[in-house]
Amino acid sequence: MAVIGIDVGGTKIAAGRLGTDLCVERSVVIPTPHGGIKIVDAIAALCADLGSDSTAPITAIGVGLPATIDAVTGRVAHSVHTGMVDFDAAGPLETRTGLPVVLDNDANLALLAEHRMGAAEGSQTALLLTLGTGVGGGIVIGGQIFRGGRGHGAELGHICVDGDGPPCQGDCPGHGCLETMCSGTAITRDLRAFAAVNPNTALGALHAVGKLDSRSGLALARDGDSDALQVFAGAGRWLGVGVASLCNAFDPDVVVIGGGVSDAGEVILGPARKEYLARALPPTRRAEVVRATFGHEAGMVGAGILAADAI
Amino acid sequence: MAVIGIDVGGTKIAAGRLGTDLCVERSVVIPTPHGGIKIVDAIAALCADLGSDSTAPITAIGVGLPATIDAVTGRVAHSVHTGMVDFDAAGPLETRTGLPVVLDNDANLALLAEHRMGAAEGSQTALLLTLGTGVGGGIVIGGQIFRGGRGHGAELGHICVDGDGPPCQGDCPGHGCLETMCSGTAITRDLRAFAAVNPNTALGALHAVGKLDSRSGLALARDGDSDALQVFAGAGRWLGVGVASLCNAFDPDVVVIGGGVSDAGEVILGPARKEYLARALPPTRRAEVVRATFGHEAGMVGAGILAADAI
Repeated sequence: MAVIGIDVGGTKIAAGRLGTDLCVERSVVIPTPHGGIKIVDAIAALCADLGSDSTAPITAIGVGLPATIDAVTGRVAHSVHTGMVDFDAAGPLETRTGLPVVLDNDANLALLAEHRMGAAEGSQTALLLTLGTGVGGGIVIGGQIFRGGRGHGAELGHICVDGDGPPCQGDCPGHGCLETMCSGTAITRDLRAFAAVNPNTALGALHAVGKLDSRSGLALARDGDSDALQVFAGAGRWLGVGVASLCNAFDPDVVVIGGGVSDAGEVILGPARKEYLARALPPTRRAEVVRATFGHEAGMVGAGILAADAI
Repeated sequence: MAVIGIDVGGTKIAAGRLGTDLCVERSVVIPTPHGGIKIVDAIAALCADLGSDSTAPITAIGVGLPATIDAVTGRVAHSVHTGMVDFDAAGPLETRTGLPVVLDNDANLALLAEHRMGAAEGSQTALLLTLGTGVGGGIVIGGQIFRGGRGHGAELGHICVDGDGPPCQGDCPGHGCLETMCSGTAITRDLRAFAAVNPNTALGALHAVGKLDSRSGLALARDGDSDALQVFAGAGRWLGVGVASLCNAFDPDVVVIGGGVSDAGEVILGPARKEYLARALPPTRRAEVVRATFGHEAGMVGAGILAADAI
């Protein structure tokens, strides 16, 4: 028996085939096309590819979307980054693949993986933030994933930390949402803004040749570049502001940070933890703020778990 | 059978005797003394007073505190406004009164009342904010009060809406917490700041005689004073920023606004609703933002319900 886990992000789709032990046997990453039908086409092609060399039959497909899924209709209600609105993603995908398809929000699935066998294992109350193109959120309450009243909740990237801050991304009408302050997109924006006014720096040199983004900026930060470190620390500080808010609201055991930006590790988590501890109410400073065990693969692994659970 | 419900606020203690139908038979309001033992003394005296003319025997006392109660120890863990830290409030009160005493966070109890027989009746997912000296919060998930992982959660007044905003109150180390932007204390601060630089206004005239606070400011706003209306609208706008964050996180059916400041009604709720609808993600704009059915008495009624439920 094998299942396929798909994690659709704002920029990339990660797809993996998981065996009976839920270990990833093979994975593929492609850019995310824009629009619901194109994303369904891309997922169907990835499933065909991952099924082609499987020794065991594929029994189900789990898909994580950067979207809210309506708990009543099962349709994609809304997605800041992919343009899906009131969209049936599971139906066409089942038709193309002939396999059962289960859907959830991408960050819920990252938390499912971390809660089942990662950084939040055994926790009754846990939060997860995925830092990528946007910022996704997942919530465990009473040992179960909490998706909001009608499945549209846990959009923790869209809590506001700076009410008069910059406008948010995609079709989010907010300002100063957590996503606007510490996503990969926000870090790239801030790195480039610094580089533009400081051309005679390592960041400026990268920017001049059009190669400055959160990934190349992180490489500089890891080499000890103080400018790059400062931009990541700024994003980390805002992450800490959000974590403090969330800890005051939920009083979790653990806050797990996943997504591509979590590859920055302590470069962003160190400043985040410091700010969180400086701001949270005393009793809610008990939560550990840790990196996802499955790193940026948490969503894909969680999608596989969802599929395996469904059959 | 009768029970006593006590709502301890940062400024006032409201105490009421409730009959078998949970209607308030008689109520008393006194100023809140500072410190745990003095508050216990005051509550014991209120209970003696309310018991003195009761036709039915008092069977239990419910107390709402502006504090987090540790779910494991049952002790008051922390309170921004009363100075209680790791404090046993129930024990000494049972000794003085000879009656069973049950405790909870004040806003949780306001939500208990609203959920049982008020604005959130029958809701599976509901939020409540009490606007008073501070801002308290309550959460219903799956039809039950959610108190956070260890009972320290639901401090929704301490989500940050303005990360570089003014320092929060009491011993909250946050900046720009919701409480700092739309509590009664915040409104009084903003009214006085306006009056200080605009002495030739109605607000300025009240301030000059030392009589300007959120209550007198509200009276002016109700009379159509545009300056007072603007200050309340500013607080309402920040309330809306917080409500949008909370709706994105919880996707509730309803957001109930209680506490003394909710007496302002549409003067504050109108601007709050407008800002919330302008900022929340499309699917989470479904929540109604309404005034508490029990107004500023919700906490006292909820404390009575807690006591009645306990026996």
